[in-house]
Amino acid sequence: MTTHAILLPNWLTRCAENTPEKLAIQFGQTQWSFAELDRQATQLAHQLAAAGVRQGDRIALLAANGLTFVSFVHALIKLGAILVPLNTRLTLDELCWQLKDVKASMLVHDIQHEATAASIARQLPQLLQATLQLNGDQVTLQNGPEKEVTLRALIDLSATQAILYTSGTTGNPKGVLITYEMQWWNAIGSALNLEHHADDRWLACMPFFHIGGLSILLRSVINGISVIGLEKFDAIPVNEAIQKDAVTIISVVAVMLQRMLTALDQQQENGRYPSTLRCVLLGGGPAPLPLLQNCARRDIPIVQTYGLTESCSQAVTLAPHDALRKLGSAGRPLLPVQLRIMNEDQIAAPGETGVICLKGPSITQGYADRPEATAAAIKDGWLTTGDLGYLDEEGYLYVLDRRSDLIISGGENVYPAEIESVLRSHAAIEEAGVCGQVDQEWGQVPIAFVKFYEGKTATIEELHAHVQHYLARYKQPRTIYIVEQLPRNSAGKLLRRELHTLLPEG
Amino acid sequence: MTTHAILLPNWLTRCAENTPEKLAIQFGQTQWSFAELDRQATQLAHQLAAAGVRQGDRIALLAANGLTFVSFVHALIKLGAILVPLNTRLTLDELCWQLKDVKASMLVHDIQHEATAASIARQLPQLLQATLQLNGDQVTLQNGPEKEVTLRALIDLSATQAILYTSGTTGNPKGVLITYEMQWWNAIGSALNLEHHADDRWLACMPFFHIGGLSILLRSVINGISVIGLEKFDAIPVNEAIQKDAVTIISVVAVMLQRMLTALDQQQENGRYPSTLRCVLLGGGPAPLPLLQNCARRDIPIVQTYGLTESCSQAVTLAPHDALRKLGSAGRPLLPVQLRIMNEDQIAAPGETGVICLKGPSITQGYADRPEATAAAIKDGWLTTGDLGYLDEEGYLYVLDRRSDLIISGGENVYPAEIESVLRSHAAIEEAGVCGQVDQEWGQVPIAFVKFYEGKTATIEELHAHVQHYLARYKQPRTIYIVEQLPRNSAGKLLRRELHTLLPEG
Repeated sequence: MTTHAILLPNWLTRCAENTPEKLAIQFGQTQWSFAELDRQATQLAHQLAAAGVRQGDRIALLAANGLTFVSFVHALIKLGAILVPLNTRLTLDELCWQLKDVKASMLVHDIQHEATAASIARQLPQLLQATLQLNGDQVTLQNGPEKEVTLRALIDLSATQAILYTSGTTGNPKGVLITYEMQWWNAIGSALNLEHHADDRWLACMPFFHIGGLSILLRSVINGISVIGLEKFDAIPVNEAIQKDAVTIISVVAVMLQRMLTALDQQQENGRYPSTLRCVLLGGGPAPLPLLQNCARRDIPIVQTYGLTESCSQAVTLAPHDALRKLGSAGRPLLPVQLRIMNEDQIAAPGETGVICLKGPSITQGYADRPEATAAAIKDGWLTTGDLGYLDEEGYLYVLDRRSDLIISGGENVYPAEIESVLRSHAAIEEAGVCGQVDQEWGQVPIAFVKFYEGKTATIEELHAHVQHYLARYKQPRTIYIVEQLPRNSAGKLLRRELHTLLPEG
Repeated sequence: MTTHAILLPNWLTRCAENTPEKLAIQFGQTQWSFAELDRQATQLAHQLAAAGVRQGDRIALLAANGLTFVSFVHALIKLGAILVPLNTRLTLDELCWQLKDVKASMLVHDIQHEATAASIARQLPQLLQATLQLNGDQVTLQNGPEKEVTLRALIDLSATQAILYTSGTTGNPKGVLITYEMQWWNAIGSALNLEHHADDRWLACMPFFHIGGLSILLRSVINGISVIGLEKFDAIPVNEAIQKDAVTIISVVAVMLQRMLTALDQQQENGRYPSTLRCVLLGGGPAPLPLLQNCARRDIPIVQTYGLTESCSQAVTLAPHDALRKLGSAGRPLLPVQLRIMNEDQIAAPGETGVICLKGPSITQGYADRPEATAAAIKDGWLTTGDLGYLDEEGYLYVLDRRSDLIISGGENVYPAEIESVLRSHAAIEEAGVCGQVDQEWGQVPIAFVKFYEGKTATIEELHAHVQHYLARYKQPRTIYIVEQLPRNSAGKLLRRELHTLLPEG
């Protein structure tokens, strides 16, 4: 068995050669072709080289979704430097901790984050900084000269493309190593499952600093398809883009989709999307059944998916032809991925709940500079995700919950997602979050937090009656709290650990 | 830079899990789903194991296109054994030479080739043989027991899948090593270029013992699409299959396509194919312009391609959107492929003719047991194809000729394909072949052989007048011979070296 490094021609450059005029990326009124994006990335790479960026350097980026972000991603690829995109919603202390932890050799930020960058400079005066700006039609480093260096025409698949800190619903954040190989195999696995059409346009409204957003940028140049970018998620502009920009695929999480449907009913008389929209890729956690049924009624082509940073986004995805037959399932592993459910070190039988484990070339080989965490999470190539689920008889994955969210009550396992799904099926409830509360008698009991649709309401008694109708006694929330907002991370994922902060004082 | 072996779940098994009921392969009246094909291959693998086939063995197959061939390909994959498909048109001596050369540990043949196998047994009495048959609905080894062995659930991309002897238009035949990696990257490169649709049906009418046919079988299970198989090429059944079996893609060479069009005019009043046919992949040598123009008039979606055994079929393919803009070009390299034109050890400028060189994970790493031939053909990963061509200003490849066919006349390079194209543009000429003839004055001069359409004719004088109109004097054939048939190999490729045998005696 011999192996050898696989080198591929730079993906963006190939697109610029194959389809120079084709739309690569659109933000607002600005449309860049692949040739233009390649030119911008090349120019920026020369400026970054002049600023001292070298192959293998870890370069942190603090920037909003935009043309600057996209150009920067490709400029670093041309230099062989490693992208460390920072979550723009972190506190100053969290940002500084992460910059030190990853040993960033430079912090690049956009104009919007100038103030934060200045604060960072006071705490980390040694760290080089540079400002990225969109100057007229040009992405440039502020006042940056260019240096003529030889850019990398080839991509070594085994090299690290990015380090992404996990959103950290359990333990300390860790930097996940994302290689080019992972991006490649993920993009191909996705194309084989969802089909590949030359006129595809992928709407990106998730932050590019999360894997869900970043992987769209890479998929665009691997598959040669267009990206419609939005600075952030907002239901109305998203719906407008789907209507007028011929979007074919969109990646969302459940809460986004729910807001989109609510807005859609106000925007469109028939409450439907145009037929150009061929795939709504729904990730970020178990999807509530009522939402899926609502989409089915509107003929919205929902494709459920399960993935995490460590799997470079999608790892398991429901094929479109199974969407209705397997409602609620995350589907089957993408072609490069092996999947198994482990229960107490044994491979679980069909229907038996256990921990979801993944292996394959789109799965990370570890965490940056953390051999112990890597060894704990990955054994013989198998990544233990910590998430719970089971496979049905046909090998379709049903994700139950994140293990850290598991509530154990009187020896029974209680899965918050199941309770939330029932709560959301109530006509007045837009969002719901469930967590465990310590209880003398049962160990833990579930409690719930719900947010009403605007203009709708219900009494606590009605809500309890509703859940009693659907759930076994031990799964019924002990208390239901009505709140204005649920805690979510920037990708829209519910942070169940933070639900406790909503509890009334005392 | 670290590399590691990439293991993927068996492709056929994945298809059987993902889409068990979907059509995998059709031959005549028989349709097998992916689940059925997987079952047949598994059973056959157990029989082959009982017959002594082990991982890494080189197993020769002498069989016609059919369900037996397809099952056998996948059975060997499950055993990790190497397929050596034999060209069924070889003479007995050629077959025996190849079996010895490749050190085959077993010869498996179908019922149709029983007599040939018996003759081989007399010449090579030591060589194990087994008979493959379609018994009712079961592909089996004749009288073969089954042995319960653990089949390989994973495919190691670096392993050798097959050894294919090149059709040998120059020098002695050599066995090209075809790895799983080559098949994988070729299938993905093809899907990214031609799009990937879940309902694709690829018509396979080329011999499976050539790379053009074999790669369709692998592409089917990598991409999860259906194959409509035919035992051999025959224009009328091919046209019928396109009409009634919803074929979306077909692989052909120019002479096949020409015959298909002639038959189509008799079969269909409007001389057109249904719109389900989205891609006619045209390979096997430079395509004559009149044929391409004929197809353009009928809205037939021709996609020209250039490839060879060493590149696991397609290496360079014209994208559908460029089909008319770049008529006559083989297109641009597929995503995994690097392409350059070398002229006297220098990279040729745009428009400058040279030797086509290829590199990338879909290109072979060498010839079986021939380190010297490998070293001569492949340097630093770059394969020298020996074929001539040039790139235009936009990097599109134009294939001029196979180097060995080059005619040098009075110091001028003369490319037979160019002359043939002109001859075929004459209304009476269906096929044309050109080669060089030794000449006292000029070194070589071109001579031509032409075959008329049935019912059409022209005088030799008219033909000379036709070429004088289109070609510089030194390119005009000295003599034009009218013949009944041109020499072609089993893939339909014109064998220019054998044109001499058509010369009148004396």
